[in-house]
Amino acid sequence: MANPSPGYSLTLRVETPATITATSELAIAVGSVGGAITALDVTESGHDTMVVDVSCNTTGEEHAERVRDALNALDDVTVQHVSDRTFLMHLGGKLSVNPKVPLRNRDDLSRAYTPGVARVCLAIAKNPADARNLTIKRNTIAVVTDGSAVLGLGNIGPAAALPVMEGKAALFKQFADVDAWPVCLDTQDTEEIIMIVKALAPVYGGINLEDIAAPRCFEIEARLREELDIPVFHDDQHGTAIVTLAALQNALLVVNKRIESVKIVVSGVGAAGNAIIQLLQARGATNIIACGRNGAIDRNSEHADPHRAWLAANTNPDNFSGTLHDAVAGADVFIGVSAPDVLEEKHVASMAKDSIVFAMANPDPEIDPNIAGRHAAVVATGRSDFPNQINNVLAFPGFFRGLLDAGVSEIEPAMLVAAANAIAARVSDAELNPGFIVPNVFDPHVASDVAAAVVAAVSKKK
Amino acid sequence: MANPSPGYSLTLRVETPATITATSELAIAVGSVGGAITALDVTESGHDTMVVDVSCNTTGEEHAERVRDALNALDDVTVQHVSDRTFLMHLGGKLSVNPKVPLRNRDDLSRAYTPGVARVCLAIAKNPADARNLTIKRNTIAVVTDGSAVLGLGNIGPAAALPVMEGKAALFKQFADVDAWPVCLDTQDTEEIIMIVKALAPVYGGINLEDIAAPRCFEIEARLREELDIPVFHDDQHGTAIVTLAALQNALLVVNKRIESVKIVVSGVGAAGNAIIQLLQARGATNIIACGRNGAIDRNSEHADPHRAWLAANTNPDNFSGTLHDAVAGADVFIGVSAPDVLEEKHVASMAKDSIVFAMANPDPEIDPNIAGRHAAVVATGRSDFPNQINNVLAFPGFFRGLLDAGVSEIEPAMLVAAANAIAARVSDAELNPGFIVPNVFDPHVASDVAAAVVAAVSKKK
Repeated sequence: MANPSPGYSLTLRVETPATITATSELAIAVGSVGGAITALDVTESGHDTMVVDVSCNTTGEEHAERVRDALNALDDVTVQHVSDRTFLMHLGGKLSVNPKVPLRNRDDLSRAYTPGVARVCLAIAKNPADARNLTIKRNTIAVVTDGSAVLGLGNIGPAAALPVMEGKAALFKQFADVDAWPVCLDTQDTEEIIMIVKALAPVYGGINLEDIAAPRCFEIEARLREELDIPVFHDDQHGTAIVTLAALQNALLVVNKRIESVKIVVSGVGAAGNAIIQLLQARGATNIIACGRNGAIDRNSEHADPHRAWLAANTNPDNFSGTLHDAVAGADVFIGVSAPDVLEEKHVASMAKDSIVFAMANPDPEIDPNIAGRHAAVVATGRSDFPNQINNVLAFPGFFRGLLDAGVSEIEPAMLVAAANAIAARVSDAELNPGFIVPNVFDPHVASDVAAAVVAAVSKKK
Repeated sequence: MANPSPGYSLTLRVETPATITATSELAIAVGSVGGAITALDVTESGHDTMVVDVSCNTTGEEHAERVRDALNALDDVTVQHVSDRTFLMHLGGKLSVNPKVPLRNRDDLSRAYTPGVARVCLAIAKNPADARNLTIKRNTIAVVTDGSAVLGLGNIGPAAALPVMEGKAALFKQFADVDAWPVCLDTQDTEEIIMIVKALAPVYGGINLEDIAAPRCFEIEARLREELDIPVFHDDQHGTAIVTLAALQNALLVVNKRIESVKIVVSGVGAAGNAIIQLLQARGATNIIACGRNGAIDRNSEHADPHRAWLAANTNPDNFSGTLHDAVAGADVFIGVSAPDVLEEKHVASMAKDSIVFAMANPDPEIDPNIAGRHAAVVATGRSDFPNQINNVLAFPGFFRGLLDAGVSEIEPAMLVAAANAIAARVSDAELNPGFIVPNVFDPHVASDVAAAVVAAVSKKK
């Protein structure tokens, strides 16, 4: 199912005979094994030989090997070096910390540092609220992880999680001018994480929790929300829920159904599943069945886990018992935040007419979207190489921009709904179709629209 | 003693009659009360009146009031608004976090973030040492404080300390291209601070402890050095010690004395005093008397505090007992890192011929340097408005640049001595005189020279 991706982009440095057909032969060889050429640069040229940098996208390591072999198999062609463009991009990390003020001379130094800075310190000591005006707190958030549930990679630890958190911080800046800093914690103890984040809080105007495993993430989020006076957002919960709700609203417009009356099956009761269910309910959904690994969560058995107990009490109005496969029969909407290939074609076929399938497990969805599309009216995934990517980047930058601009101390469901509405509204009536239910992630207006919607939701409340 | 400083720089917006002498009258009025004009900008001009922005340096708040009153006292002149240029500079904080990689399109996103980033994460999970190449760890340090001993302001807490830490981080970038991030901790518990800094360490290539009160700072530094595999530097100790040693070496050249044979009295046995004494001894000093509030630390009494016990055992070879004033009689060198005005003129007069006085208490020195200069051959302070400023900015940026470049995991005395030698050597024989024993803080070569010296010291050791 994998297509060549720029995430697996290589540059192969190749020595080849200096013939007129040389570069086209290289291109044909790469294409013959399914590599997607993105550039051919001649870096050295002589009478007899040339050196060519062949850049191409592949599907992964094994495919990259086949590309290399295909080039080496050409007469008199030698691959001298293979560089991985993704690794090259990460050399030295992806963030820098820069002064916003000039420090060219003694006058600058006297104001930005001693002795002038002392007065600024004293002003904050006297009136702590001034920290929002006179320090980076106004525009800075922490991207906090313990490395326990990173992407689809699992518990890889804080150091290995850092490239993701750096990328996240870069997106915050790029899309919403929020200064975000990675905090990768070398502990997976709930109490320690809570204590540390509380101790770090003076520098930050908000906390973005990221890739922390369930159920620990729930406790951490709930406690920090209670104990901190800055907003605490768990992107795997709230970000995913916002974009899912936005996409679902538009998908329901496509099939002309109402959220209040559709039957929704959610596969996956981790961080994302719980948050999605709560937000869909906040937006009016009434008939949701949550499925874990052992099937639908019902009221026929005891649930030691408080989140499952909550789901049992607050979802599944008909108290359906059975497997995920039984649950999806007749459902209008399937939302998967679980595991690859938990659905087969026949299960999608068993859904109601004009069904909606969001298969968001990453990198491999709950069902191949091409197969789901044979029966469902609208299909979305978390992947960028299929239509309708449910991508949190549509939500988190603008959402935090709004939180910081409004000086919010606590996130409320109305803000999440407002953000989802703003994202959904970026798809105009003229654009809306089964293959375009969410805006492009590079739509430059999404973040500002989301921020404005959050600010409006806050002022409405006041 | 205070001179007008750009740290107390104001811009007064003044409405004045539109006469040919108006601006010069404003300048005279400011000058008449001792304000130092830095700019006069006419921002509006009409037939009858003008609006002029008068920028000037003052000595403090009370002086600023006098400047305002002097202007208001002029005929038909009204001060409309006073803005404090130091506060203006701090609005919104002094740091930003910026992506170092482009994020313009899907290809960029696929490499910097998902799916490409997953391979980078896995590479680090497999080989943790790769974090130094593939993340910001390579070039990033934490500036850690608990806000307990900030500048001369005391225990003002983490939020009020943030402007100083931001300024410090800005200096790291400006002088040595080190990415530094402020970590202001809302706890003053030694064990919690140690635990937190250890948990944060995956993101950082070094730790700069800053403005943490003694004796807590000693325990924190010692434990972190032991338990972390990245270098831990306490600027109030090591930074101050490096620059003090550099200055002392040049001062001794001026008076033609040798460090091995001079009698040195150190006033102040906190973080800085302890570190200075240790570094001077590492460089060959043999006759040091350390004085606390109750006089010289000797072997006649028990010392419960381990740092005082160490000083008693390892300094004061003649086991001198008495006050600071008694101790300085006949001394060649006085080094003050203690409190304002602990010395009077007669005490400096009692020192040996060609004495050296470093009165580094901030903002008010142990003795007015102008008074000390009547008897001492060389005088230095921590202030920028007198010659010979002992300023840590000469040391810490280049020192960390060297530590990061060399991939050092532990700081050793030889590195501190090498850094001091490099700073001292920036003052050429031709430049050296009693008023120029340390290089200018804006000397663009200091940081790179210090970095190179640290790298050389490391490779020498290997």
